[in-house]
Amino acid sequence: MRTSQFPLNTIKETPADAEVVSHKLMLRAGLIRKLAAGLYTWLPLGLRVLRKVENIIREEMDRSGALEVLMPAVQPGELWQESGRWDMFGPELCRFKDRHERDFCLGPTHEEIITDLVRSEIKSYKQLPVNYYQIQTKFRDEIRPRFGVMRAREFLMKDAYSFHLNQESLQETYDRMYETYSRIFKRLGLRFRAVLADTGAIGGSMSHEFHVLAESGEDAIAFSDQSDYAANVELAEALAPAEARQPASRPMEKVATPGKTSIAEVAEFLNVPPEKILKAIAVMIAKRDLDREWEEFCLLLLRGDHELNEVKVGKILGKFRFATDDEIEQHMGCRAGYIGPIQITGAKGVINMVADRAVPAMSDFVCGANEKGFHLVGVNWDRDQPTPLHVHDIRKVQEGDPSPDGKGNLHIARGIEVGHIFQLGTKYSEAMHATVLNEEGKNQVLIMGCYGIGVSRVVAAAIEQNHDERGIIWPEALAPFQVALTPINMHTSERLREVAEHLYNALLSEGIDVLFDDRKIRPGVMFADLELIGIPHRVVVSERLLESNQAEYKGRQDGEAIQIPLEEVVPFLRTRLNSIG
Amino acid sequence: MRTSQFPLNTIKETPADAEVVSHKLMLRAGLIRKLAAGLYTWLPLGLRVLRKVENIIREEMDRSGALEVLMPAVQPGELWQESGRWDMFGPELCRFKDRHERDFCLGPTHEEIITDLVRSEIKSYKQLPVNYYQIQTKFRDEIRPRFGVMRAREFLMKDAYSFHLNQESLQETYDRMYETYSRIFKRLGLRFRAVLADTGAIGGSMSHEFHVLAESGEDAIAFSDQSDYAANVELAEALAPAEARQPASRPMEKVATPGKTSIAEVAEFLNVPPEKILKAIAVMIAKRDLDREWEEFCLLLLRGDHELNEVKVGKILGKFRFATDDEIEQHMGCRAGYIGPIQITGAKGVINMVADRAVPAMSDFVCGANEKGFHLVGVNWDRDQPTPLHVHDIRKVQEGDPSPDGKGNLHIARGIEVGHIFQLGTKYSEAMHATVLNEEGKNQVLIMGCYGIGVSRVVAAAIEQNHDERGIIWPEALAPFQVALTPINMHTSERLREVAEHLYNALLSEGIDVLFDDRKIRPGVMFADLELIGIPHRVVVSERLLESNQAEYKGRQDGEAIQIPLEEVVPFLRTRLNSIG
Repeated sequence: MRTSQFPLNTIKETPADAEVVSHKLMLRAGLIRKLAAGLYTWLPLGLRVLRKVENIIREEMDRSGALEVLMPAVQPGELWQESGRWDMFGPELCRFKDRHERDFCLGPTHEEIITDLVRSEIKSYKQLPVNYYQIQTKFRDEIRPRFGVMRAREFLMKDAYSFHLNQESLQETYDRMYETYSRIFKRLGLRFRAVLADTGAIGGSMSHEFHVLAESGEDAIAFSDQSDYAANVELAEALAPAEARQPASRPMEKVATPGKTSIAEVAEFLNVPPEKILKAIAVMIAKRDLDREWEEFCLLLLRGDHELNEVKVGKILGKFRFATDDEIEQHMGCRAGYIGPIQITGAKGVINMVADRAVPAMSDFVCGANEKGFHLVGVNWDRDQPTPLHVHDIRKVQEGDPSPDGKGNLHIARGIEVGHIFQLGTKYSEAMHATVLNEEGKNQVLIMGCYGIGVSRVVAAAIEQNHDERGIIWPEALAPFQVALTPINMHTSERLREVAEHLYNALLSEGIDVLFDDRKIRPGVMFADLELIGIPHRVVVSERLLESNQAEYKGRQDGEAIQIPLEEVVPFLRTRLNSIG
Repeated sequence: MRTSQFPLNTIKETPADAEVVSHKLMLRAGLIRKLAAGLYTWLPLGLRVLRKVENIIREEMDRSGALEVLMPAVQPGELWQESGRWDMFGPELCRFKDRHERDFCLGPTHEEIITDLVRSEIKSYKQLPVNYYQIQTKFRDEIRPRFGVMRAREFLMKDAYSFHLNQESLQETYDRMYETYSRIFKRLGLRFRAVLADTGAIGGSMSHEFHVLAESGEDAIAFSDQSDYAANVELAEALAPAEARQPASRPMEKVATPGKTSIAEVAEFLNVPPEKILKAIAVMIAKRDLDREWEEFCLLLLRGDHELNEVKVGKILGKFRFATDDEIEQHMGCRAGYIGPIQITGAKGVINMVADRAVPAMSDFVCGANEKGFHLVGVNWDRDQPTPLHVHDIRKVQEGDPSPDGKGNLHIARGIEVGHIFQLGTKYSEAMHATVLNEEGKNQVLIMGCYGIGVSRVVAAAIEQNHDERGIIWPEALAPFQVALTPINMHTSERLREVAEHLYNALLSEGIDVLFDDRKIRPGVMFADLELIGIPHRVVVSERLLESNQAEYKGRQDGEAIQIPLEEVVPFLRTRLNSIG
């Protein structure tokens, strides 16, 4: 393609309303343009990238045996009423009435539609399992669309839905989708992790999120440096310390710590490391029985260098909230900042406590003395107070923690969620009466899985992960063009033009996707544009280079350009592209 | 692909609510399923066909130099207000409000969106001309969606919009689109005509519709048997007769024709052919000047075998309606059925007349005598009455009429509109202030063209044109698979299975798109399915055929199958597919 026929829409100024780097670069490189809040037009250059993502996804989904369909974007409200989501879904669901006053919505996902299709098409267990997918426009009326196509209202998504007679079959397809997604993101050239995800209220069912690693990611994820274990930080298990508790080496003493209420202050004041301090966090746990609801006071105990994981606490204790200063005073007889598990003299009744796994291994530690302005030092379990009874994993994992699968240590990084696989179970099939005849000839409710990839989001995530101050650095598989051919001042040299045209045709006939910059502009502008739009390989020809029959090659990330003989350019690029692809 | 992994969704019963053959066959062959009125899911088999159409369109649009973009399906109402279409468009435009109560609609077309893009991206005449296209989902809330995807509410469309500095540039792109469309429909293997279309009230501007010829088509079109002239029947020009008027050969006489008022009755009663009878049709023409509106009585004169073309009359006389019997009586002093242009004795004042081009060439003709129960015979112009002054083309063309381009004669056939190219002019660019700097550095309003293809409609039209009582007959380029491989009772013969598997792999490795029917079903069911879904080439292998080392080949439209040696199957098909492709 020639830039004269495939105009670049690059802009110099950084758009004011773009907050993240992918949004800025997508606008500056001319990949997208904003139509309205959360609505973007894909320009020719951006669409080339989007299609590359789409094609890789399609190839791998086909290879997995999934069947491509295309469902309408507009969905009848009555199916959503059947599934119960019409009332459950918030205002992100864009609802409207057609000219006959019937309810419709713009599909944010397609569970209802595919379940409706399957309940009429699939009659027997012999037709199972089946996995339908589509690559299609979705709409979610986000309250605050932002970050360009990263959180847009209209976006392209690959969604797949599988149907099964039993859990084993679901697990098999789920595992195949896990592999397929891994292959997709690998082919896209992205650094990613498949992260064990929270299945929320549904519980029990398996779910993985696929995250592209990038500093700007919204989610913190923990992953092993020696295995493919990865989990949302909220979910990653913190193991109990491998080493046994050290024996007590000093007596317990009360020391004055006036005004020192935080771990950091106490650590500095007493000159002890935070991991030798016990942190007590007071919470109120919601309780209910048949005829009443009430709250119960509880102390959560953590090592001073550890952070509470509220998701884990919620799973163990149910609904809870942090206690107010007044409530702490009321239950402990001591103000916040000086509370602890030992010598609770002012408490009304027994104080419930839940300790993190690291707590029983502490010795000679510091904790609040339950007296304003005082802490205890040299505290030891069993000697000074029984080791806590209720011990659970209630902290967030940290960089360097041992990986819960026993292989290596955890890294913490940020990720952008681009895919999600989920064992849905019978949520939709039960509500919508999607059954098949099983081997005994009896009706059986179908079991479902669903599998999504945010196609347009992948493009933004790829940029978040791969860019520098000059622009985008496309992974080879995503680059809108593989090679940029940039003749310098071709418009004043007939000889150079001939060489450039010849080279262009030679590259094309090799099947290399080349962008020939035949614009009549200054070389500096040309180079800046091509770096901004992130073409991985650049070949320069010029009058000066022609004198020695050379061309200049530079990879997008190379520090220096190298010279290669003109006649070597094609074989050089062929080898280079093959070695990468 | 194997049918065990790519299940067919064929059904035997003809669906009750399907009116046209393409709709019936698309449901029966398992190409689509209805979700709601005018909303269809494309099943895997149908989607394969849809993608083939899409790919051919994309290839040819790219080849034409058009640039692919992707605009949102959801459009902000404010742009429609700017163009004036928000209020003009009827309830087909699906309007809704987002969560912030802002107006949006689902795009039925994208003129506003592309004009908005271009007015901000294109600043100078140097960036012109440009032609943007997309292949994308549209929504039109049809009052009565019918005929399956032929007139659906949600459908796939290729729409393109070009922008120009002047009319010459528009004409150039328009001509290129005309050629591109011709190439697309030719590659799709469809019999079609590019038809000069009515530009409606806008007038002047050029417009062509592309019609797939099919008996069930909604529109009648006239086209030459010797050139590529084609036009909507309403628009095709009827030339004046080539032969001069014959001299008068008999005197004018009044004859009694009691109760004979229609051309057919008079022709039979007087034993004259209809073309020797003059038909007079009374109409009322709307007139207005500054301070009043009124209607004027007028007689339209036609040859008895010709049909009035109301579109043409409208263009000449403006708004009109047919006169009532009372109005005829009132103005002509004679009741309808016996009126004519000669011897108007009972008329109040001068009667306006407009004659068709064929009328002045009539001689010795019959016409109403302006007296109840009587006609005149042997009437001749000039001798009995001056030849009419106002002569225009006001009739519909007929089968066999000379083609208006002077080449051959006209055929009349029915067509399904699948494409439309249109010179829009400045309608949108003016309303939305889309200007560029011209060579003199002055702002100039852009000139636009637009070019659409109903992608999903093409699939239905192809079936309307190509089917028989057994099912679909796909043109090669559209067939979901090129070849069906059908082993008979493979599941009871290990030897046959081996041969079939070997053949399947051999065909695959030739790059032939083959559907291997490995289902354990009766051969009759298998054949019926494959004919229903319209695979162009079928290869049968069986135990019996194996005995003589033969396979059986049958083209979808062949009467008889032929036997070919097993080892010849691959080269035979290769040759056959190449000769077609």
